Amino acid sequence: MKPVGPIPADFTAIGGELALGGRTVSALVEEVEGTPLFVYVSDVILARMGGLRAAMPERLKIHYAMKANPFRPVIAFLNELADGFDVASEGELLRAISVGVDPSKISFAGPGKRDQELVLALLHGVTINLESANEARRALARAETMGVTPRLAIRVNPDFEMRGSGMKMGGGAKPFGVDQAQVPDLAREVIAAGAEWRGLHIYTGSQALDADSVIETQANVLALAARISDEIGVRLPHLNMGGGFGIPYFDKDRPLDIGRVGEALKQRFADLPPALQDTEFAIELGRYLVGEAGVYLTTIVDRKVSHGVTYLITDGGMHHQLAASGNFGTVVRRNYPAAIATRFGEEAEEEVNIVGCLCTPLDRLSDQAMMPRADVGDIVVMFCAGAYGASASPASFLGQGPAFEMLV
Amino acid sequence: MKPVGPIPADFTAIGGELALGGRTVSALVEEVEGTPLFVYVSDVILARMGGLRAAMPERLKIHYAMKANPFRPVIAFLNELADGFDVASEGELLRAISVGVDPSKISFAGPGKRDQELVLALLHGVTINLESANEARRALARAETMGVTPRLAIRVNPDFEMRGSGMKMGGGAKPFGVDQAQVPDLAREVIAAGAEWRGLHIYTGSQALDADSVIETQANVLALAARISDEIGVRLPHLNMGGGFGIPYFDKDRPLDIGRVGEALKQRFADLPPALQDTEFAIELGRYLVGEAGVYLTTIVDRKVSHGVTYLITDGGMHHQLAASGNFGTVVRRNYPAAIATRFGEEAEEEVNIVGCLCTPLDRLSDQAMMPRADVGDIVVMFCAGAYGASASPASFLGQGPAFEMLV
Repeated sequence: MKPVGPIPADFTAIGGELALGGRTVSALVEEVEGTPLFVYVSDVILARMGGLRAAMPERLKIHYAMKANPFRPVIAFLNELADGFDVASEGELLRAISVGVDPSKISFAGPGKRDQELVLALLHGVTINLESANEARRALARAETMGVTPRLAIRVNPDFEMRGSGMKMGGGAKPFGVDQAQVPDLAREVIAAGAEWRGLHIYTGSQALDADSVIETQANVLALAARISDEIGVRLPHLNMGGGFGIPYFDKDRPLDIGRVGEALKQRFADLPPALQDTEFAIELGRYLVGEAGVYLTTIVDRKVSHGVTYLITDGGMHHQLAASGNFGTVVRRNYPAAIATRFGEEAEEEVNIVGCLCTPLDRLSDQAMMPRADVGDIVVMFCAGAYGASASPASFLGQGPAFEMLV
Repeated sequence: MKPVGPIPADFTAIGGELALGGRTVSALVEEVEGTPLFVYVSDVILARMGGLRAAMPERLKIHYAMKANPFRPVIAFLNELADGFDVASEGELLRAISVGVDPSKISFAGPGKRDQELVLALLHGVTINLESANEARRALARAETMGVTPRLAIRVNPDFEMRGSGMKMGGGAKPFGVDQAQVPDLAREVIAAGAEWRGLHIYTGSQALDADSVIETQANVLALAARISDEIGVRLPHLNMGGGFGIPYFDKDRPLDIGRVGEALKQRFADLPPALQDTEFAIELGRYLVGEAGVYLTTIVDRKVSHGVTYLITDGGMHHQLAASGNFGTVVRRNYPAAIATRFGEEAEEEVNIVGCLCTPLDRLSDQAMMPRADVGDIVVMFCAGAYGASASPASFLGQGPAFEMLV
């Protein structure tokens, strides 16, 4: 037996079935006429944003990193809640604008921006988080040709990293951002060239669950931003402090204590160095806002026993749930939270392997998990599917195609 | 410094540039107006098929497993060369038919076939490789309702596996196929129900490079097929012996010696047990036929040095090259074969990290690789990109979208 991850507390049952936005999974599946189906629950997004607003200093802006979930209705919903959007490509930028996001609230980070992407960002007045001196010069040259004032920030590659983060984005040699020692010179060059100086972007890691690490990292980010700004000789207009707030995926994971993070940040904000006193501060969050709000529903199409092991074979799989299958930056596969949605809350009584429909042993959804007895036609739910699910999985693999998606 | 994998011998340069189908990469990129671009070289596919035909017994049919590369022109090209096609989903089946593949030459395997997929296969007279007793009964019931004679084979979950294969598909409990001990009863049930008995499918592993393992496995497959057929009491009409022929991806990988495999198989075929004397034998190959025929081209958009480490940042990445990035069933990431296509054959003079444009440290194409000096605008080539590349990668990740693809 292997444990499954913790099911977010937001979910309850109606008549023995998982309910999402007040409706049973059967009713939702019937509406779209099938599975696999991602359902994103707006109330959960609202609750996460509400919790953040309550915990964080009022002065702190909360941006949405749309790479986590670029489903149009999710973007539209967050457009009412978030203070800004971070995009990572031309595709994301065009989608945000098409959904109605104000381009002046958008920043664009990414280490390999093509010229056409810079032009698009310049055209719409999007803030470009510069990743290199080369990119700075390309952006300035394009802006001059176009006759626009570029809005430029610099993404810093800090010498420190976030301890205990699931994915390290700083510390030592990195393809992201400009090494911190080189930032002041480049910033002065950018400012002297007539750009609108939009400050710094310091991203240090993602999927952090330890409040102490986040608190320490945020302190380091503020100190570094102040030091760089002093060297530049200009007060810092804007600081994107990164994000990295994680969610519990696995057994024994505990939620990040955002109350403690917020308290520590309030104390920092009460005692800012001169360079940061007028700064607009922002964090950018993706997974934290939408990850637990999404579930992935897939129907059992076969149940079989091979050499004494019971398999529940579903019509979904790794082509929509690459990370949950254990094939996305994972060394040791562990079970995401999962359940039988049509028997939600029933007692677990058998050990099963839940797999996808793909013809590969990589297609695993839940290994040796204790579940209520389920049969063909029952619906399996994978939790924590709201971030890096549909868009971060190889949907075309084996000719399968994308899942349905809906916001309730 | 880390080695890169071996570049397939099929590729040469024209005027210092990698040439594909007699044209330089620059010319090809110009034709599609950009990168990232997959190019599949028909001559290489032809050479692999020719080599196989020369090495294998004449009696052996060679099928194409289209999951490896479902690009329409590749399917159309292989439709002229292969004796049959294996599909893994409704999507693949529809694509094969739409490209002009004769449905009677198609077999359909996959552990999670939905009813609608069975109906489609029955409608077109496609052979269904049954994965469970439940699926057999569903297929028989549907066929009766539709008034058609189902063409049914049984996929066997053998008690043995292919030693040294990159991905094990048999041996012990598995979601694939029917445990070998249960096959005779199910086969008799299927035959008694009036199905056209299409025999057995025994798939034991993939990406094997060791001829001895393949030879041993094929011997085991033939022995098992004979034993099962004797128990069924009917001579075996067809045996899909699986595939699993690998290609060299990594340093020190050596190509599979198909000459030895073919010789051993000829000897086996010369001395077949009675149950197999009239059997039509087939192997199904995907990766072996198309993997080395494909390359992935991506343009360097930035070159930068961080803490003394040189990064070449490209406009491609893991969203098209998930396996090469090390995020697809890989425990320890190693470098696929790679080169600077616009400086092909030039001497390596610096150590670089080649990365994609995605804002994640997972997006690696080649780590600490020795390359000729390359700059913005140069084209990087990743080899061995013809199988499980475009269709097995999360193309929508970070709003990027699919790469161009062409067959030359």
